[in-house]
Amino acid sequence: MATHRFHPTRYFNVIGTAEPCLRIADGDTVVTDTIDASGLDAREVAVGDRPNPMTGPFFVEGAEPGDTLAVRIDRLTPSRATGWTYSPLAFTVLDPDAIPDRPPTERAVWDIDVKAGTARLREPPKGLEAFAPPLQPMIGCFGVAPARGQALLTATSANNGGNMDYRLFAPGTTVWLPVSVPGALFYLGDGHACQGDGEIVGTGIETSFEMEVTFRVLKRTITWPRGETAEDIFAVGNARPLDQALQHATTEMLRWLGEDYGLEPRAASHLMGQVVRYDVGNVFDPAYTVACRIAKRWLTER
Amino acid sequence: MATHRFHPTRYFNVIGTAEPCLRIADGDTVVTDTIDASGLDAREVAVGDRPNPMTGPFFVEGAEPGDTLAVRIDRLTPSRATGWTYSPLAFTVLDPDAIPDRPPTERAVWDIDVKAGTARLREPPKGLEAFAPPLQPMIGCFGVAPARGQALLTATSANNGGNMDYRLFAPGTTVWLPVSVPGALFYLGDGHACQGDGEIVGTGIETSFEMEVTFRVLKRTITWPRGETAEDIFAVGNARPLDQALQHATTEMLRWLGEDYGLEPRAASHLMGQVVRYDVGNVFDPAYTVACRIAKRWLTER
Amino acid sequence: MATHRFHPTRYFNVIGTAEPCLRIADGDTVVTDTIDASGLDAREVAVGDRPNPMTGPFFVEGAEPGDTLAVRIDRLTPSRATGWTYSPLAFTVLDPDAIPDRPPTERAVWDIDVKAGTARLREPPKGLEAFAPPLQPMIGCFGVAPARGQALLTATSANNGGNMDYRLFAPGTTVWLPVSVPGALFYLGDGHACQGDGEIVGTGIETSFEMEVTFRVLKRTITWPRGETAEDIFAVGNARPLDQALQHATTEMLRWLGEDYGLEPRAASHLMGQVVRYDVGNVFDPAYTVACRIAKRWLTER
Amino acid sequence: MATHRFHPTRYFNVIGTAEPCLRIADGDTVVTDTIDASGLDAREVAVGDRPNPMTGPFFVEGAEPGDTLAVRIDRLTPSRATGWTYSPLAFTVLDPDAIPDRPPTERAVWDIDVKAGTARLREPPKGLEAFAPPLQPMIGCFGVAPARGQALLTATSANNGGNMDYRLFAPGTTVWLPVSVPGALFYLGDGHACQGDGEIVGTGIETSFEMEVTFRVLKRTITWPRGETAEDIFAVGNARPLDQALQHATTEMLRWLGEDYGLEPRAASHLMGQVVRYDVGNVFDPAYTVACRIAKRWLTER
Repeated sequence: MATHRFHPTRYFNVIGTAEPCLRIADGDTVVTDTIDASGLDAREVAVGDRPNPMTGPFFVEGAEPGDTLAVRIDRLTPSRATGWTYSPLAFTVLDPDAIPDRPPTERAVWDIDVKAGTARLREPPKGLEAFAPPLQPMIGCFGVAPARGQALLTATSANNGGNMDYRLFAPGTTVWLPVSVPGALFYLGDGHACQGDGEIVGTGIETSFEMEVTFRVLKRTITWPRGETAEDIFAVGNARPLDQALQHATTEMLRWLGEDYGLEPRAASHLMGQVVRYDVGNVFDPAYTVACRIAKRWLTER
Repeated sequence: MATHRFHPTRYFNVIGTAEPCLRIADGDTVVTDTIDASGLDAREVAVGDRPNPMTGPFFVEGAEPGDTLAVRIDRLTPSRATGWTYSPLAFTVLDPDAIPDRPPTERAVWDIDVKAGTARLREPPKGLEAFAPPLQPMIGCFGVAPARGQALLTATSANNGGNMDYRLFAPGTTVWLPVSVPGALFYLGDGHACQGDGEIVGTGIETSFEMEVTFRVLKRTITWPRGETAEDIFAVGNARPLDQALQHATTEMLRWLGEDYGLEPRAASHLMGQVVRYDVGNVFDPAYTVACRIAKRWLTER
Repeated sequence: MATHRFHPTRYFNVIGTAEPCLRIADGDTVVTDTIDASGLDAREVAVGDRPNPMTGPFFVEGAEPGDTLAVRIDRLTPSRATGWTYSPLAFTVLDPDAIPDRPPTERAVWDIDVKAGTARLREPPKGLEAFAPPLQPMIGCFGVAPARGQALLTATSANNGGNMDYRLFAPGTTVWLPVSVPGALFYLGDGHACQGDGEIVGTGIETSFEMEVTFRVLKRTITWPRGETAEDIFAVGNARPLDQALQHATTEMLRWLGEDYGLEPRAASHLMGQVVRYDVGNVFDPAYTVACRIAKRWLTER
Repeated sequence: MATHRFHPTRYFNVIGTAEPCLRIADGDTVVTDTIDASGLDAREVAVGDRPNPMTGPFFVEGAEPGDTLAVRIDRLTPSRATGWTYSPLAFTVLDPDAIPDRPPTERAVWDIDVKAGTARLREPPKGLEAFAPPLQPMIGCFGVAPARGQALLTATSANNGGNMDYRLFAPGTTVWLPVSVPGALFYLGDGHACQGDGEIVGTGIETSFEMEVTFRVLKRTITWPRGETAEDIFAVGNARPLDQALQHATTEMLRWLGEDYGLEPRAASHLMGQVVRYDVGNVFDPAYTVACRIAKRWLTER
């Protein structure tokens, strides 16, 4: 149960089968640095490239294809006092005839006040002078190596994870990922200080982080990412259109309710029909993300 | 500010330009009965046909094309002690290769205990013996006459409302609908005692209701339904795929933030980017429903 | 087998259950006038409104719900020497970041030369001075009354037909439509002198026509429109996204191959897998259109 | 202008940045063997794995990122006398409630008669005893290395090509692909003896081939694959849903008409609006394929 402090020196724009940066044991914790979505580190020096440069990959001993890697998100601490966003809404979330303006290349800067627990636009437009959303750190992009030698751009997502931009990938959540290669090869980065549903301006408040995560290898097989918070369990689907992401997530939840909670499909359907919640992750990138979520109060683990 | 008690004797399966069942004044309240999605009334007698037989239409004096009809949902009281659902998950929410069984025609019966505030499956499958979701009454289908003489099936939805199956169409919410004909011609029905997101078994807990709603005519123009609860405002889009429903909802919210909260598109985008929430309504019927929601704590009405 | 010459005096923007303009017998032919998509008649006088004002409805005696109305398109003759189009590509067919310009309200005028069999832009932009596509008249929008009292805007389409904008709805084609009301109630209009796949500028070359069609009532039931040309049979699906339109069309073709050509699903699948063709109709309006087409040379009617 | 005869000994299931199997000069021709989609070679020995094992990659000297690789398909000769297909229609092309049966794992065998120019099911189901579709060889899957170190599964497609399953990727066609790495790194395989639109049974008639292709490096930049036949030019988009594939293809065609044919967007739109054709490639795999096609008779190269 060691804790490793890893200082990355190179970053990856694909999640694939690269040489591990560190080998750790099942149960170990890693504390490491991540740079922002455009490659700026804690000193705002450009040390990586877009999109979403990843720290990693971490080789978790004992993880084999067909296993599941459980990743507990222990802590996400912003490592600098500024973040940035784009300002216009993404093309993907507006009616085509209502796009307000063309995407500017300039960014808006946010001041991150860890003590106050808020972020503020440095130059707020009219009406947002007092706007200070709470810091709610989350990991935008993370995952394990996909199957068959694939290497997937960190701008997108698939069943191995990737750029899902889902708010519940936050401290206190444990995420399960399907392992396809020995050691799992885990990558992470693209931390957000805050983000609404959908990442609809194409970014959260992008900044560098110190991230702490703990790994556990489960000898079981899953198809899509799953997660657990203090209150909920959720399954995640990544695809386009949103309809298909929702199908993947719902199907994975149906399987989960059968495997761990003893619910046959008819029982699971009755339960889900009355208490399911859907959350929208990324609706900006090539694959969209939907989470199918159920409060644990409705469930009894068998 | 009269209150009218209306007892329907006929029901409608399209939302169109039918002869009004009652004429009321701006500001009036209506208390009326609705039958369930399959046409069963409070005594479980079949008095209407599928899909979603509607009570109405109510003619609201003073409502003209281009206006907005505000409908406050005052009270939704189940008028019988049983409801029903389908049991399997809908084809639309599962991966095609994971559909667990073919849709049976039989229904599951739920006992509705208004005093306890819960519903229970009369014959619960294994694992759901103790499952008693709380009563959270909502209106599944309601709307005003669409433009140009259209008559739209109550199985679907459009910018005039319809079968949206969104949980926040519940007591305490005020809904705005775009008026296309004199008097607005408001219909309602398809009450649910409870329902998860998406109406993913093809039903909520379907039962008959006594519904109380209060109307107000606003001399302003909107494009898609809008709503307000104690905590949130939301805009609703109806379309397929979900992506397009989300675009309609987001675009309507962007307009709203400009009209009522003084936010230019750039400011509105910054706000929405950090605090927006998306909710999924119906993902079962021809048009799907997405709500774009923002907490009022972030807004200052101008 | 009478031929009726009908001169319309009113036009419809919904396909629904209006009072018939003419009652005809099974086997009869109708020759009638249609106005263009914006309501201009043969003299370019505005006598109807957008979208797609329809001539009709024609009541075909003997047609009952559950039957099929066969409509043979005998002749489509432009009734004036000009047509019009919009010029920019529709938002729906371009990447959001590549939309070249905002849709102008001005129209481009085309001269229709029936003798030469071509159309020409009156004021061609640079590079199109010699561009003279052949006249290939087709019916953009037609259909029968939908079920249950629905009235559907002529801007969209459904299983009863509507604004499908498919090139093979042309002289020589016989179209089958599912009958939902006594007399079928057939409407037609929105003639195009020419049109590429998809109606991707939002119009074909829109003009007024004299149209001749012959009706026959078939005592059989279909779900989606079907058609037959000299060389092909095709089934049509209308929905969004295109994927779903394609599913409807393919499913209807599968049924058809079973009903009329004695092919069990496995045989039909083998045949379709090697020889099917997909054509794209409207990709501009709320519902898109896909045709699933098979050459008759591969089929033996049983 | 050398001709190289290459005998592959290993095959790839991702299109990425592997070690070249052969280096050739700009203008050279390659004659090589491809194995079928499941890995069977000319002797029906399994030498590769699913999905779609690729021959390659070929390094074309002079090709640099930002260039375009032109690939002329000279000849596709089946190298054995049998092929295979799946029999049921894919889930993706049928209405969910109309799926005729669950996908069997057994395959149907076709006899390929090169002399007669036809294929025949070895055990035809009732009604297909005489069914002998013509051999129309095509390449199902081919492409160049994608950008940024991506490695994409040969079950899908993207802007670098991949599993597009489009009938016009056939002898006589020249395909253009956007180069992202030095040498382009071209892969090919998954030959079909015949295939309808959409690859709707999940396969064409899958068999091994001897393929002959000739490469040329163009010092110009494209975004999506383009192609030219004796009669047409076409641009290809790969995405889900079909709507987005169509948008990519249409946008690429719009660019092409500007670059090579001197047509400003307004002129290009007028031309495309009247003469464009859309073809459907793969509608089975994660990304679907649409081609936007225009007959060369309408175009004057500048």
